[in-house]
Amino acid sequence: MKKIASSTVRVGLVQTACLADPKKNLALTLNRVEQAAKQGAKIICTQELFRSQYFCQSEDHEHFRLAESIPGPSTDAFCKIAKKHKAVIIASLFERRAAGLYHNTAAIIDADGSLMGIYRKMHIPDDPLYYEKFYFTPGDLGFKAWQTRYAKIGVLICWDQWYPEGARLTAMQGAEILFYPTAIGWHPGEKAKYGARQHGAWETVQRAHAVANGCYVCVPNRIGLEQIKGVGGDGIEFWGQSFVAGTSGEILCKASADKEEILIQDLDLSNVDTTRTHWPFLRDRRIDAYGNLTKRFVD
Amino acid sequence: MKKIASSTVRVGLVQTACLADPKKNLALTLNRVEQAAKQGAKIICTQELFRSQYFCQSEDHEHFRLAESIPGPSTDAFCKIAKKHKAVIIASLFERRAAGLYHNTAAIIDADGSLMGIYRKMHIPDDPLYYEKFYFTPGDLGFKAWQTRYAKIGVLICWDQWYPEGARLTAMQGAEILFYPTAIGWHPGEKAKYGARQHGAWETVQRAHAVANGCYVCVPNRIGLEQIKGVGGDGIEFWGQSFVAGTSGEILCKASADKEEILIQDLDLSNVDTTRTHWPFLRDRRIDAYGNLTKRFVD
Repeated sequence: MKKIASSTVRVGLVQTACLADPKKNLALTLNRVEQAAKQGAKIICTQELFRSQYFCQSEDHEHFRLAESIPGPSTDAFCKIAKKHKAVIIASLFERRAAGLYHNTAAIIDADGSLMGIYRKMHIPDDPLYYEKFYFTPGDLGFKAWQTRYAKIGVLICWDQWYPEGARLTAMQGAEILFYPTAIGWHPGEKAKYGARQHGAWETVQRAHAVANGCYVCVPNRIGLEQIKGVGGDGIEFWGQSFVAGTSGEILCKASADKEEILIQDLDLSNVDTTRTHWPFLRDRRIDAYGNLTKRFVD
Repeated sequence: MKKIASSTVRVGLVQTACLADPKKNLALTLNRVEQAAKQGAKIICTQELFRSQYFCQSEDHEHFRLAESIPGPSTDAFCKIAKKHKAVIIASLFERRAAGLYHNTAAIIDADGSLMGIYRKMHIPDDPLYYEKFYFTPGDLGFKAWQTRYAKIGVLICWDQWYPEGARLTAMQGAEILFYPTAIGWHPGEKAKYGARQHGAWETVQRAHAVANGCYVCVPNRIGLEQIKGVGGDGIEFWGQSFVAGTSGEILCKASADKEEILIQDLDLSNVDTTRTHWPFLRDRRIDAYGNLTKRFVD
């Protein structure tokens, strides 16, 4: 088959454990992002809320102190690195927007060091030990794509990954690569019985976003067992396994479940065109019959 | 975890090769459906367009003669078997609706032998050797679910399987099980290079429908190499591998790529409730932000 002009971009995903001290986590992630840049990565994505341990294991007003403004100290630091290395950076942060108004937000920084925009997590979970509805106001900016220097990218966050609607709406804006900063893991007590199935569902649904939309999907996730002070039980064992899926949903690379890693992968953006032409799903969508997707249920 | 009242239903999927003679194919499939019923299957689904070889490999007006009315001779035969065995049957047929108006249609027959309704394939492909847009008018009945005697089911057909929208809209009507009668295979010349990736994409995207909607997905596909008279090239090698996915997208059973099989699987319908409660994706859909799904593209 004839290809259009090839355009390869190297991406980097940072998978780390998180310590109790946010300053150390920030320093560590800045360091890892720089390492990725030195390995040639041109678009680099952090895992979700890398600055802290996963505080949503409890509902504690003290944790709001972890939030920061955007722009703010973290984006300032990443903007400098982005400019220095001419790399696009996606940084997942706990955003304080106003008193009593917080979001789970990703900052998209272009290769010139400018803050291009932000994405505020649209779908907010609330499950045992994942009490995010207490902390995060659902995003009010919708689904978005950004034409960065190296590719047109979309950014969604963790729980968004279970929603084909979010992937579709982002791809429909031209995103060639979808990034999903993530913090997901096992309840240790459930792992033996349900662990493989839970992880399988997570990986499968995101690979399917690549299939359905003929685009790349990049997912950095954290590792480590985290037991938050004051919370009983056995904590969350984050399952790592950050991965990159190709435009047919195939796994291009995948990290371990328990080691810090910088995942580096070259993506040929011309594959988006090739895949979508050979599997022309966008051509045949029945938009005349999709109206009920804006309903909660059809009953 | 506490379960609601358990309700198990046994499903049967028929995977066969197709001969040149439609009468023989119908007889064979009726026989296999009866065999499935005798093995206790209560909801039985044929592969797509089982009555004929896959004629869409060429655009030939003669092939319209293969179509039949619904109700018609095939549904009459299946209705008898459904009544005799008290089994729900989903039969995939080439429907002649009026002169010059044809659909790729599934008939849904309840366990009392009555024709409950039909589903007309909504997404119609058109690719080399899959010239379906020549034959099939896109469905005008939308996405549907039926409360059969044993379960609430949805039926979609083949190319529909690439569209999360179709699965979602069907599940939103309460479908506990999605059936996808299918006819898909490899171009033999491409199989070595692309075959694994193509099949992987197909299986992955449908497993993801189960994940995203917390429902079962059942996919009967045909087998065999078919080279249609008058069509050059090496035909299509249908890849079989009919499968049933559980409510977390896990493969519960899977047929071979090259043997006739009747796939039998017990499904505990209470898992739909359990899975959706523990992975409450329906709760958090951002229906306020999904309006653009009815657009072709956002540009």
